Amino acid sequence: MRELDQIRIVCVNTLYGGNLGSICRAMQNCGLHRLRLVNPNPDLDRVELRKMALRAITVYDERVEYPTLAEAVADCGAVAVTSGIDGFHRDQAKGPRDWAPELLDAARHKPVALVFGAEDKGLCNDDLKLGTHWIRIPSHPEYSSLNLSQAVLLCAHELFLASGEFEPREESSPPAKHEFRERMFDAWEQTLLDTGFCKTDKLDHMMMGLRRVLSRGALTENDVKIMLGLARQCKWAAQNTPRSPGENLSRER
Amino acid sequence: MRELDQIRIVCVNTLYGGNLGSICRAMQNCGLHRLRLVNPNPDLDRVELRKMALRAITVYDERVEYPTLAEAVADCGAVAVTSGIDGFHRDQAKGPRDWAPELLDAARHKPVALVFGAEDKGLCNDDLKLGTHWIRIPSHPEYSSLNLSQAVLLCAHELFLASGEFEPREESSPPAKHEFRERMFDAWEQTLLDTGFCKTDKLDHMMMGLRRVLSRGALTENDVKIMLGLARQCKWAAQNTPRSPGENLSRER
Repeated sequence: MRELDQIRIVCVNTLYGGNLGSICRAMQNCGLHRLRLVNPNPDLDRVELRKMALRAITVYDERVEYPTLAEAVADCGAVAVTSGIDGFHRDQAKGPRDWAPELLDAARHKPVALVFGAEDKGLCNDDLKLGTHWIRIPSHPEYSSLNLSQAVLLCAHELFLASGEFEPREESSPPAKHEFRERMFDAWEQTLLDTGFCKTDKLDHMMMGLRRVLSRGALTENDVKIMLGLARQCKWAAQNTPRSPGENLSRER
Repeated sequence: MRELDQIRIVCVNTLYGGNLGSICRAMQNCGLHRLRLVNPNPDLDRVELRKMALRAITVYDERVEYPTLAEAVADCGAVAVTSGIDGFHRDQAKGPRDWAPELLDAARHKPVALVFGAEDKGLCNDDLKLGTHWIRIPSHPEYSSLNLSQAVLLCAHELFLASGEFEPREESSPPAKHEFRERMFDAWEQTLLDTGFCKTDKLDHMMMGLRRVLSRGALTENDVKIMLGLARQCKWAAQNTPRSPGENLSRER
């Protein structure tokens, strides 16, 4: 069973269609697709909703609506409730990153609800009571209240990352071997001399600088190929480009 | 110096006022306040902008505008560019969580830019060229393209968390000591007997169940106080509540 299929995003008393559309898109961005609405605003702006959901409008089309939160979470094991304010035993709240592994684990057994309140008031105490996990999203005291869809995104994103479903890109080229890097540095050494960038007495000093520049990050085979080819081409050009008589070979800066 | 003060959110060719407003709010939610705009849509919907920014409209009011990205990042050390698509050496991209510590470190020396493209096209290759760090936000292949303000939020949130400025709530009550927990269990043992919940022959079995229930999470002193008080009250009530004659003391379920 896929854990993310067992996650229900439950929105209580949502007021704005634009937020709901953004929620749909954020859910699909994070591999979620089960949306439950408790008593949404009957006058939701459906134009805004579609504009913000774009392709993820399917999430809205497949939503299920309930008259109360208790009914919306009746089949759920873990019920994670979100709140941005203090009081009423909220000191037990943790961030979505802290809860994500436990919630995914719970999703292997029963559906798991993540519950979000209305834009203006959040969840009331009667709704918070139903929670088994309390979420407080980290935010700055200067302006701690997040937009509803931004709050859903941060929670969904943590579940998505914790699920391991995202495969980060890997460098398509493997790290270069020592021996290949040294061949490149040998070529540059010759190029520094042949282009007149420096004379033999300064060669070690300049090469150490170049080695440092090219060792700031781990070079891949492709990186070394580019830098090796460039060294050789510069050396070739220094020897083969026609020059006007008397032109000075010493470097200009 | 505060690292987050050195972060510049740079938005190129932004089209929609609503997104820009959401970006301002997301920035302030994450302790950021320096917004730079490169060639924004001159017909930005300023009503939508204010509606989504709410109190964070100050971030927009204090923005700086530039005609080109090169000018917008001229004073920056690290320049982190975001892209959701493949090709053009993008295999070196990492997620915002991966880069956050390095970007904050760079912010101790020079301003750091996080660059986001337009809603429809993202950053073009000429803009990506200017990047020192390439960001690809983890998202699901089913619908990998994030809303602009959602992308900004995820990057800003990672910087905010990595900055250590957020102080997570702590339980206001310390964990209960073994000896205090045991006093509570002793009280419940007596209560199970005195209320007729079980007889002595089943007492160990029932108490083991109750111990397991009350050990699923670490109890605080306040938790134990509540449960100890409850046990004592039940015991008292069982002994003192007036009863009609012949009423059965055995438990009903």
